[in-house]
Amino acid sequence: MRRDMTLDATLSLIRPVDSEKMAAIQGRINRQAKPQGSLGRLEEFARRFAAITGRDTVQKKVVFTFAGDHGVTEEGVSAFPREVTPQMVFNFLEGGAAINALARHVGAEVIVVDMGVDFEFKPMNGLLLKKIGRGTANFAKGPAMSRQEAIRCLETGIELAASCRDAGIDLVGTGDMGIGNTTPSAAIAAVFTGLSVPQVTHRGTGIDDAALANKIRVIEEGLRVNTPDPGAPVDVLAKVGGYEIGGIAGLIIGCAALGIPVVIDGFISTAGALIASELHPHVRDYLFAAHRSAEIGHAHMLERIRLRPMLDLDMRLGEGTGAALAMGLIEAALQALREVKTFDDAGVARGDER
Amino acid sequence: MRRDMTLDATLSLIRPVDSEKMAAIQGRINRQAKPQGSLGRLEEFARRFAAITGRDTVQKKVVFTFAGDHGVTEEGVSAFPREVTPQMVFNFLEGGAAINALARHVGAEVIVVDMGVDFEFKPMNGLLLKKIGRGTANFAKGPAMSRQEAIRCLETGIELAASCRDAGIDLVGTGDMGIGNTTPSAAIAAVFTGLSVPQVTHRGTGIDDAALANKIRVIEEGLRVNTPDPGAPVDVLAKVGGYEIGGIAGLIIGCAALGIPVVIDGFISTAGALIASELHPHVRDYLFAAHRSAEIGHAHMLERIRLRPMLDLDMRLGEGTGAALAMGLIEAALQALREVKTFDDAGVARGDER
Repeated sequence: MRRDMTLDATLSLIRPVDSEKMAAIQGRINRQAKPQGSLGRLEEFARRFAAITGRDTVQKKVVFTFAGDHGVTEEGVSAFPREVTPQMVFNFLEGGAAINALARHVGAEVIVVDMGVDFEFKPMNGLLLKKIGRGTANFAKGPAMSRQEAIRCLETGIELAASCRDAGIDLVGTGDMGIGNTTPSAAIAAVFTGLSVPQVTHRGTGIDDAALANKIRVIEEGLRVNTPDPGAPVDVLAKVGGYEIGGIAGLIIGCAALGIPVVIDGFISTAGALIASELHPHVRDYLFAAHRSAEIGHAHMLERIRLRPMLDLDMRLGEGTGAALAMGLIEAALQALREVKTFDDAGVARGDER
Repeated sequence: MRRDMTLDATLSLIRPVDSEKMAAIQGRINRQAKPQGSLGRLEEFARRFAAITGRDTVQKKVVFTFAGDHGVTEEGVSAFPREVTPQMVFNFLEGGAAINALARHVGAEVIVVDMGVDFEFKPMNGLLLKKIGRGTANFAKGPAMSRQEAIRCLETGIELAASCRDAGIDLVGTGDMGIGNTTPSAAIAAVFTGLSVPQVTHRGTGIDDAALANKIRVIEEGLRVNTPDPGAPVDVLAKVGGYEIGGIAGLIIGCAALGIPVVIDGFISTAGALIASELHPHVRDYLFAAHRSAEIGHAHMLERIRLRPMLDLDMRLGEGTGAALAMGLIEAALQALREVKTFDDAGVARGDER
């Protein structure tokens, strides 16, 4: 099928998840031999996945780890040097990072998407070369990227969603790698939540108090210089975002349009999800928030999207690590949906619950 | 090896988990190519499992679902009829319950332990016949069981721990089945936390407001009639406990003594863990609290033991369902411990984190 994969055409395809389908699946769950609702949120995970996809099993799971560099690192916002971004990309491709271990645990594939690393990768297995530029510009001094680049990021993600649909991938996880990328993510959080920069800015990979104060100052300066418009999400992405954040936002929009459930990881993935969600109110219907990150701004972004995190394990690594774990919970929920017998089949007496 | 499996002998074997071993494992984690501490609580799960067992893989996982009936059901404390206890035991043995589905998801075996169901089971695969009696007495009118029976419950659990050790089971989950068993569990919670009965008593399988008020009245009456002594945990088990709760407590004590990590499930399992923990302060070192149940008294019991739940999914089913899910997280944590490369091996530059 030939699809129009422009941003506007894709946004126009997004529909709410069918509430009648969800009710029918909940009816099936309610006939299972257990107190009504007693599997709690697992029932919601199963119900929503099944309503979105029309199936009660996951066929193929992939975590997309989007990588990009950030001009704002020249302001000293990260504890790690910029060359760690490509070094970690190689580590992902060799299978030695935390996301590889956790993805193997749940049986998911890891695909790295180079959206804008400051390094020229050769074609490699497991790596998609989608570079928009070799790192964004320093948003403390001007826009991180042009509006055209922001749209290219989004449409790159949308094309990826279409390729997932073609490949039978029915559960997508998002992840990120990019030294400095909690800085644009905090800027995005501040713009859309209306909170102050100190309320949403935290230590990233582990900066000290002085570096945190500097990071806050840099973000405040970036917002003052660029005046991103919270009513125009593409403008926000261009002015204070990042290439990998735009790719994540685009993948989410494409998956929402094509009916593929997406598990979003932590702080950076949620910045992407927030841009997507501000572009269309029903994007959130297709999202599972994997976990609450230790980054203080994360919970505020999830509240803005109206998503409740599945896990709360003080993780703050990114890469898609939380998304991988959460995929396991969704599959557990589906296994219960498929395999728990009804009261009638199991020969168990019903209760008089209210 | 011939072991003395009396309660007192077993309690005397319990030691704190070796803090030097834990520090050594954390040192290994800290050399992995990721920001220090960025896998959050997963690092603690891996560190503690590995320090307890001396290994970084799980060999064999079993969820023990302890079943028992409760005389207090004659007071109308549950939404389900008493015959559901044996009906659900048959459902477990046939593999049709939620615990079976979730245990299959994580690759754990389910073993049902009849501690006191009001039904005579024939020997069956997957069922251990350890019946202490055909349901406890109604604790609203007198003690639920004798002190001797309480000790038999505990020592039955201890023997089970020894059989785990012999069978190479190195990750144990606890679960429960017993119509009415949130009632003794809430009584136990009230005794040890010092909170009022309404603060720790909730809707169990789904009772309405009037039944909840009655349940609270019944528990208050039981505590008034029996005056259980919070300084004497065996007395509390005998007076307001249950056979399956005693079995769970004993299994936990035995596992702590023999160095087997235990994942405790929800409200009923935690009542058992609380009795065990009150008997020896270092029992908690061997426990992983799977989740926070929707039962309001659960979080208070976990606080008393000083355990933080791994998951918070509004589950309230019991059976060991939460424990099965949590086993998956522990194995994920261990997979990261085993497989994530060090900075040196991965060729990744270190940061200057503080």
